[in-house]
Amino acid sequence: MTISVVILAAGMGSRMNSDLPKVLHKLGGAPLVAHAMHAAQALDPERMVVVTGHGAEAVAKAARAQNPDVLLAHQAEQNGTAHAVAQAREALKGVTGDVVVLYGDTPFVRSETIEAMLEARKDHAVVVLGFEAEDPGRYGRLVMEGEALSRIVEFKDASEAERAITLCNSGVICADAGALFELIDAVGNDNASGEFYLTDIVGLARDQGQSVGVVRCDEAETLGINTREELAGAEAAFQARMRAEAYEDGVTLIAPETIHFALGTTIGRDSMIGPNVVFGPGVTIESGVTVRAFCHLEGCHISRGAEVGPFARLRPGAELAEDVHIGNFVEIKNAMLDQGAKVNHLSYIGDADIGERTNIGAGTITCNYDGVFKHRTTIGARAFIGSDTMLVAPVRIGNDAMTGSGSVITEDVPDGALALERSAQTTKPGLALRLMQRLRALKAKQQKET
Amino acid sequence: MTISVVILAAGMGSRMNSDLPKVLHKLGGAPLVAHAMHAAQALDPERMVVVTGHGAEAVAKAARAQNPDVLLAHQAEQNGTAHAVAQAREALKGVTGDVVVLYGDTPFVRSETIEAMLEARKDHAVVVLGFEAEDPGRYGRLVMEGEALSRIVEFKDASEAERAITLCNSGVICADAGALFELIDAVGNDNASGEFYLTDIVGLARDQGQSVGVVRCDEAETLGINTREELAGAEAAFQARMRAEAYEDGVTLIAPETIHFALGTTIGRDSMIGPNVVFGPGVTIESGVTVRAFCHLEGCHISRGAEVGPFARLRPGAELAEDVHIGNFVEIKNAMLDQGAKVNHLSYIGDADIGERTNIGAGTITCNYDGVFKHRTTIGARAFIGSDTMLVAPVRIGNDAMTGSGSVITEDVPDGALALERSAQTTKPGLALRLMQRLRALKAKQQKET
Amino acid sequence: MTISVVILAAGMGSRMNSDLPKVLHKLGGAPLVAHAMHAAQALDPERMVVVTGHGAEAVAKAARAQNPDVLLAHQAEQNGTAHAVAQAREALKGVTGDVVVLYGDTPFVRSETIEAMLEARKDHAVVVLGFEAEDPGRYGRLVMEGEALSRIVEFKDASEAERAITLCNSGVICADAGALFELIDAVGNDNASGEFYLTDIVGLARDQGQSVGVVRCDEAETLGINTREELAGAEAAFQARMRAEAYEDGVTLIAPETIHFALGTTIGRDSMIGPNVVFGPGVTIESGVTVRAFCHLEGCHISRGAEVGPFARLRPGAELAEDVHIGNFVEIKNAMLDQGAKVNHLSYIGDADIGERTNIGAGTITCNYDGVFKHRTTIGARAFIGSDTMLVAPVRIGNDAMTGSGSVITEDVPDGALALERSAQTTKPGLALRLMQRLRALKAKQQKET
Repeated sequence: MTISVVILAAGMGSRMNSDLPKVLHKLGGAPLVAHAMHAAQALDPERMVVVTGHGAEAVAKAARAQNPDVLLAHQAEQNGTAHAVAQAREALKGVTGDVVVLYGDTPFVRSETIEAMLEARKDHAVVVLGFEAEDPGRYGRLVMEGEALSRIVEFKDASEAERAITLCNSGVICADAGALFELIDAVGNDNASGEFYLTDIVGLARDQGQSVGVVRCDEAETLGINTREELAGAEAAFQARMRAEAYEDGVTLIAPETIHFALGTTIGRDSMIGPNVVFGPGVTIESGVTVRAFCHLEGCHISRGAEVGPFARLRPGAELAEDVHIGNFVEIKNAMLDQGAKVNHLSYIGDADIGERTNIGAGTITCNYDGVFKHRTTIGARAFIGSDTMLVAPVRIGNDAMTGSGSVITEDVPDGALALERSAQTTKPGLALRLMQRLRALKAKQQKET
Repeated sequence: MTISVVILAAGMGSRMNSDLPKVLHKLGGAPLVAHAMHAAQALDPERMVVVTGHGAEAVAKAARAQNPDVLLAHQAEQNGTAHAVAQAREALKGVTGDVVVLYGDTPFVRSETIEAMLEARKDHAVVVLGFEAEDPGRYGRLVMEGEALSRIVEFKDASEAERAITLCNSGVICADAGALFELIDAVGNDNASGEFYLTDIVGLARDQGQSVGVVRCDEAETLGINTREELAGAEAAFQARMRAEAYEDGVTLIAPETIHFALGTTIGRDSMIGPNVVFGPGVTIESGVTVRAFCHLEGCHISRGAEVGPFARLRPGAELAEDVHIGNFVEIKNAMLDQGAKVNHLSYIGDADIGERTNIGAGTITCNYDGVFKHRTTIGARAFIGSDTMLVAPVRIGNDAMTGSGSVITEDVPDGALALERSAQTTKPGLALRLMQRLRALKAKQQKET
Repeated sequence: MTISVVILAAGMGSRMNSDLPKVLHKLGGAPLVAHAMHAAQALDPERMVVVTGHGAEAVAKAARAQNPDVLLAHQAEQNGTAHAVAQAREALKGVTGDVVVLYGDTPFVRSETIEAMLEARKDHAVVVLGFEAEDPGRYGRLVMEGEALSRIVEFKDASEAERAITLCNSGVICADAGALFELIDAVGNDNASGEFYLTDIVGLARDQGQSVGVVRCDEAETLGINTREELAGAEAAFQARMRAEAYEDGVTLIAPETIHFALGTTIGRDSMIGPNVVFGPGVTIESGVTVRAFCHLEGCHISRGAEVGPFARLRPGAELAEDVHIGNFVEIKNAMLDQGAKVNHLSYIGDADIGERTNIGAGTITCNYDGVFKHRTTIGARAFIGSDTMLVAPVRIGNDAMTGSGSVITEDVPDGALALERSAQTTKPGLALRLMQRLRALKAKQQKET
């Protein structure tokens, strides 16, 4: 059965004390809205609609970054959740099958949970996601009638008996696309805040004699973010979840609490991650990789047997083949390093292709920017780039080629050739001593004068 | 009303197991004594006196670093707290208004609390700072008589009934300057340790028919530091307080527990601080700044829209104007970077002025030290400094000027000029291959011989 | 009395979900097996035997790295602990005195505890290490008869009364060498799993009328590692132990939870360790040293008064004499820096000797590798190495010598001489401006075309 997803992401989140729309605050290196999208994507939805409102342009951009195929709907005024879903009607035109409504500020709902809701749709016209709350507080309560949901009662309208119910409403809901919009059309705003509530479709469905079911999930999945403290708490929960997954996958984490994972971080078995490693989005690490302390990785791929760090930064587009070594104070950006290549010290490799078993000396820089354009550096296999070589791109260094230490290479170097840009060393006996004596005398004189 | 402050900082703190005087151990990047000074400075005191003893010279230096106007008094022998305050008599000569006595090893007393004590002085001749202790243990107890303090009883002298009191003495005290020294003159040392106790002035004031009041604060404010473990606990408490303040100010903290704040760290709304950022003293960050992971900031100012790190070190005197970009493995010291300037990779910029929108290539170094003197580098606006440029200071690069990659620049470069220090590249066909073959053959021979 | 040690390290540890043998997983930067060896080494044993099995070659290598004199025995099939100890018979041939059996996956048993067992041997033929378990669970129980151990009963064979016993068996055992192997010969494998259990020697000794004693240790010492989560827990316990030791030794730890210690980390009194410092094995730091944030130290020695970091990496063989300064983005490997030498910025010093009070400029690199061989750089005292100097090893720089900024130094520089490798600076008026205008025009044209 095909499913589609609507993600509500229009709110400002004024309790965040921020000019940034709430769903753009980051969790695991990715905006909040990307988390709900990430969970939904695992279900391979027919369509995915993000409903924007506050900061619509920025939210749209973040949503597209997470999923280029996302559809966008705009809710100009925030008139309640039913009104928000109604904005997705155009984007979902002609769609059949189920629609699941998720929330951009509720990042932890799991794909498996959404699947369970779809499964429950076989028995019910509408399925609501509920959770047993440890402290139900002011959550809406789910009043059950056997296995079916009788109604959702808001805390303020609940009787004592209803307040004693601990099964609460998460807001996540699933229904057939056509039925959903029919129900939404029937929702009114005759309530204290004058808003159209999505939860009202439960009562409307029941009124039509339709069955409404409940799927239960862990309370932790339904955690919504409203303040910076809650976001910090959610980050801790996200990190704990990622650590647990890493253990399960047979990853070795030295000092696990000091590692900062991102949404989608993928690490293979028997890879070792040292202390104080920070992952940004989009990192894939194969098995048997060593990442030492103080590495900063983002949008990169590291193949089996590679060793990275300490103090290495891999930026988007860094592709390390098997057994590549990246050492300390090295930055790699948009560069492919072939098998066994080494960049061990103090280098910047950007917009480059490095051949297999090539050794890049300390202090090497690909001069990829001329002030206006970016250019590419290509180095062949088994080359030996001397320390402090400046590779002024566009430039090509051949296989088995060599550059002399301290050279600025502006012209291509053929296979097997040695390229050198250097003057003769001149040595002036005694001059250093005399220079230093003069400087020291000057200083002594200055100090005497003051 | 004018107020003055006396901070007692004479103790050795032998339980610290250190040669360093206790008040010089660091909390939030600043010596303990600086914390009490920092709280007092918020009240804009007429005079501030630090009473030194052990390690007087070093303590005096630290106190002056925190407040150049601080007055110093010396307590040659540690004869009790009243004796310590008495040493401040000369420094406070002629002062009118109130005197508050604080402690160099009690860093958490808040300005607001001191203000409340000054306010309470309207009703009382002497005001004592008390706290409700969760576990009163061996603290001195405050015996109240209605709203007034009857007397302070030491734990060892307390009756069972008095020991049941949970309101305890913090030692912080406030009185009119003249009255304070009169009371102190009357304090005797007829006790087990033969010391002159400041708390005795409470009884003496009462004996004179004067009213003594109590202001209550949170127990956490009165925390004193005696061991390294306590210091570590205090550090954790300090960090938690700074984190809470940052949230309140609308700052985004990724992985908040991994950020290390310092005394006085100031961060504007919607700035983002990544994981593993270490603040030293004297950092001010405006709104909308991004500080990525692994940055080390000290004595610097970062303006709106700037982006820093990862792996950046800003040292004292680093001034970043709006939209400046500082990238990885970059050190900035005593340097002003104008709007939109960029230093993205592997550079050292020290003692320099960089004009707006100027781009500093990777591996650039300001050679500011000749072995004896430090010199300044000046670069104009919109300049383009090629990778691996050595700027041998003193040197001036003009607006819109450019330097070739790998150049050592020893002479000024006029506006719009290109400066180059480079030889011609020579390329020797096949030489790299032959060199490498020779080396490999040599190694094979050596291995065969052993 | 002489003692010898047998460490059982043959298991695979399948619950680790790893291809690496369990005892090679790292705790405090050292393989698990090294921890038991480290504790045993403090007793200066006559012989130390590690019994390998799974991954024998790799385990043997790790054992030799920790103690080059270690003897190795191989257990081809895992037939139980008695069978494992039996494999050490050959390695212990002719040895007299006591033998202690330890476990490669039990890293926390303290030397003092083993000493207590040896002491108890005066009164007993066999001594077993027991612990009071908070939750005895499925541990084997030690059934006592007064001060002597009556028998060890496995949980599954224990009566209700025996299960109520909280004194449990750690597996660590001590006996006279000759007696131990006689007892082991008598152990049978007539049990459910068909294995030979070392604990059976207790019953056999008792049957022979010999006395068996128990030494009690803290439960934490007997912690065995079976899963990655347990390893993470053990790492946290190890770090807490190291922190406590550092406090006791009078070390100042800023942000103690962010410091990662290794097995054998040694730090002198009043040294200061900043936040986010990672220790690998083999680091010794004298008193009064400052290690700033973000340092990565391994196999190095730092003398009194030295200052290191932030962002410094000291690799094996880095030897810093008194008052040496190592600054940011600096890597030191296999190099001796004499008193007062300074390497403050962005440098790689490998395979080098640096004389006293020599200053190494920013961006200096020792070019120690020619693609096949490593060579050494020697620099005298009071030398001044200009920024971005490439020292092409083998090369020798004399006392009081100087190199010009940006020089590639391939020939020795005598004492007091200045060596320079540089062309003349050429400055082309207006060229930068024209170049940039041309590039910008090109870009504008390209943008127009697309």
